[in-house]
Amino acid sequence: MSAKETEISDLGEFGLIDRLTKDFPIINSETKLGVGDDAAILAFGEKDVVVTTDLLLEGIHFDLRYVPLQHLGYKAAIVNFSDIYAMNATPRQITVSIGVSSRFTVEHIDMLYSGIRKACEIYGVDLVGGDTSASVTGLVISITCIGDVEKGKEVRRSGAKPTDVICVSGDLGAAFMGLQLLERENSVAAQQKDKDFQPDFAGKEYILERQLKPEARRDILELLRNEGVHPTAMIDISDGLSSELLHICKASNVGCRVYEDKIPIDYQTALMAEEFHMNLVTAAMNGGEDYELLFTVPLTAHEKIEKLKGVKMIGYITAPDLGAALVTRDGGEIPIKAQGWNAFNA
Amino acid sequence: MSAKETEISDLGEFGLIDRLTKDFPIINSETKLGVGDDAAILAFGEKDVVVTTDLLLEGIHFDLRYVPLQHLGYKAAIVNFSDIYAMNATPRQITVSIGVSSRFTVEHIDMLYSGIRKACEIYGVDLVGGDTSASVTGLVISITCIGDVEKGKEVRRSGAKPTDVICVSGDLGAAFMGLQLLERENSVAAQQKDKDFQPDFAGKEYILERQLKPEARRDILELLRNEGVHPTAMIDISDGLSSELLHICKASNVGCRVYEDKIPIDYQTALMAEEFHMNLVTAAMNGGEDYELLFTVPLTAHEKIEKLKGVKMIGYITAPDLGAALVTRDGGEIPIKAQGWNAFNA
Repeated sequence: MSAKETEISDLGEFGLIDRLTKDFPIINSETKLGVGDDAAILAFGEKDVVVTTDLLLEGIHFDLRYVPLQHLGYKAAIVNFSDIYAMNATPRQITVSIGVSSRFTVEHIDMLYSGIRKACEIYGVDLVGGDTSASVTGLVISITCIGDVEKGKEVRRSGAKPTDVICVSGDLGAAFMGLQLLERENSVAAQQKDKDFQPDFAGKEYILERQLKPEARRDILELLRNEGVHPTAMIDISDGLSSELLHICKASNVGCRVYEDKIPIDYQTALMAEEFHMNLVTAAMNGGEDYELLFTVPLTAHEKIEKLKGVKMIGYITAPDLGAALVTRDGGEIPIKAQGWNAFNA
Repeated sequence: MSAKETEISDLGEFGLIDRLTKDFPIINSETKLGVGDDAAILAFGEKDVVVTTDLLLEGIHFDLRYVPLQHLGYKAAIVNFSDIYAMNATPRQITVSIGVSSRFTVEHIDMLYSGIRKACEIYGVDLVGGDTSASVTGLVISITCIGDVEKGKEVRRSGAKPTDVICVSGDLGAAFMGLQLLERENSVAAQQKDKDFQPDFAGKEYILERQLKPEARRDILELLRNEGVHPTAMIDISDGLSSELLHICKASNVGCRVYEDKIPIDYQTALMAEEFHMNLVTAAMNGGEDYELLFTVPLTAHEKIEKLKGVKMIGYITAPDLGAALVTRDGGEIPIKAQGWNAFNA
C-alpha cells in the first residue's frame, strides 16, 4: 500500500458509505429520499415501477487482472440499465451493495464507484441506497435498478406472435471476442520476464470496448418511439442470442427462424474469430454480454424498421411446433440450443 | 452427496431459478409482473415506493456451522422487511440474488428458499426477481425489498425534535447473547470425540430464537396507528442501540439522554451475560441484530405510549450541543459511541 492509500477499516462502514455516496447527485424528481435512511423513497405517481437486480462475483463474472475497477463499476451499472430498457422502461434509481476483501483500499473502491457514477450521469440515474461489507474473499457487487414505464407501455418477453419480425440492435459477438483477447494477452503477459510488457491492442479497440465498457441501448428505444413502432416482445442480450431467443420463444409460446447471414457482426469480431480459429456464428449466437436489444415487431412494421440505422431484421416468429432454428447459408436448419454462458459449469 | 441430492450444475441457472421461484405465489395486487422477465413490474398508484437492500456474506454475516439454511433464509428476508417497517411503510416485494459455491446442492438452496418463502408468507411479500450465480467461495445472499407508504406518512431518521420521547420495542441484547451461546457450543462440539454430541440449549430458547429467527415489528406499527401516534423519527436496531441512536441524532441534528435502567432486557439475556461474565448494558447497547424499532414521539404522546404493551420509553431528545449520553443508575453520564458491529474490523 502506498502512502496515499487508505485502509477501509480506517473509515468503517458508515464512513465508507458517506465517502462513496457523497458525489452522487439526485437527478430525478421522483427520488424523494436517497441514501442515508433505512430505505429510499420514490414517488412514481401514475407510472408503473420496474425493478431488476444483478449479482457480480469476482472470479466468476470478472477478473481484476485485466478489468479496471472503473470499467467494472460502469459495466455493473449498465447491465442493470439494459434490463430496464429491455422492458421499454426508463432506469431512475439504483442501489449498490459491495463486499470487499482486505486487499482493497478505499481508493480502489473509489475507482469502482467513479465508474458507477459515470454511468449514472450518462443515463440519468440516482444512487439511492446500498450496503457495504467486508468479504472474506473477493469483490462482490450487487446492484438493483428501479425504473418507470407509462402504464400499458411495458414490453415483456411474452408478447411475440407468429409472423412477427425478429430484430436485433448493433452487432453481436464482439464482447465475447474482446474477452478472448483480454484473456490471451493476460496469459501472455504473465509469461513475460519484462515487467513493462504492454499488450498490443491496436486495431482491436472496438471489441475491447464492447467487453470492458458496454452501453445500454436507450437510443434504440428512442428510434422506435419516434417511428411509432411498439415491439411485441423484447429482451436484452446478456447470455447470447441463442439463449435470449429461447427465452422469448418459451415465454411467448412460439417458435422462430433466424437467418445465419442476417446476424450483424462487426469486422473486428470476424478478424478476431479467424485469429482464434473460432466459429464466427457460434461466437455471435452464444458469446453473450453484447447488451444489445432483441425484439419482435408486427410484420406491418417491416418498412419502418428497414429505415432504422443500427437495427437489423434477422428472422421471424413461427408457430410453437416448428421450434427454434437457425437457417444456415445453404438453407439447412440447425435447432437453436442455449449454449449461453452457464456460471455453474464454468 | 447422498442419492437424493442434486448438483446445481444439473439444473443450470435458469432451471435453478424456475425451481426456486415456482412455489412463491403472488400475493399483492400491486405486483403486475413477477419473476421471469428482464425486470418485475409494480403498480403503486398514488403511494410512495420504498426500497432497501442488504448483502449477506458467508464468513462475515453468518456461519453455516450453526445457522440452519432455512433460518438463514428467513432472517435474510426479515432484516429487509424490518428496514421497510422502520420507514412506517409496508414491504410488498423482494428480489433475491444468491451466489453459491460447489459444496452446495440444490436441496441446500431449497432449504434457504423455504425460509425466505415462509417469511414472505407471514409478512405478505412477493418474490419478484433475482439472480443466481456460482461463487468461487462461500454463499452470498443479496436481497432488495420494495414497499409502499401513503404519501406524507413515511417516518425518516431525521424528524426527531428536542423534548421528544425516545421509545424502543421489545427487549435488547438477546440476539447478541444467542450468538455468543451458539459460538461457544459450536467450539465445544468441535472438541468432542462423541460425534452424536448435542449441545444443551434448555432454558435458552428465547435468546437462540432472537438470533436465529428474528421477527420484524409490524405489530408495533399497528399499535401506534391504532393509538393515533405518528413517530417523528424511526430506525430499526440492526447494529445496536448506540449506533442507531447516533444515526437519529446525526440525521435529526439533536442530542439524546437514554437511561440505563430503562433499557428493556429479558431475563435469559441477563442470565447469559452473567454466565459469560459480560457487561449486560454493553450487550444491550451494542449487541445488534435485535431488529426492534427505535423511535421518537412528541412529549404529548407520553400517556398513549405508556399504555402500549411491548414499547418502553428509554429517554428523551435534547438540543444538539448536549450530545448523546447514557445516564447510568447512579446519575452519571457516559457519552454514547458507536461500538456497533464493524465488519471491516471483524
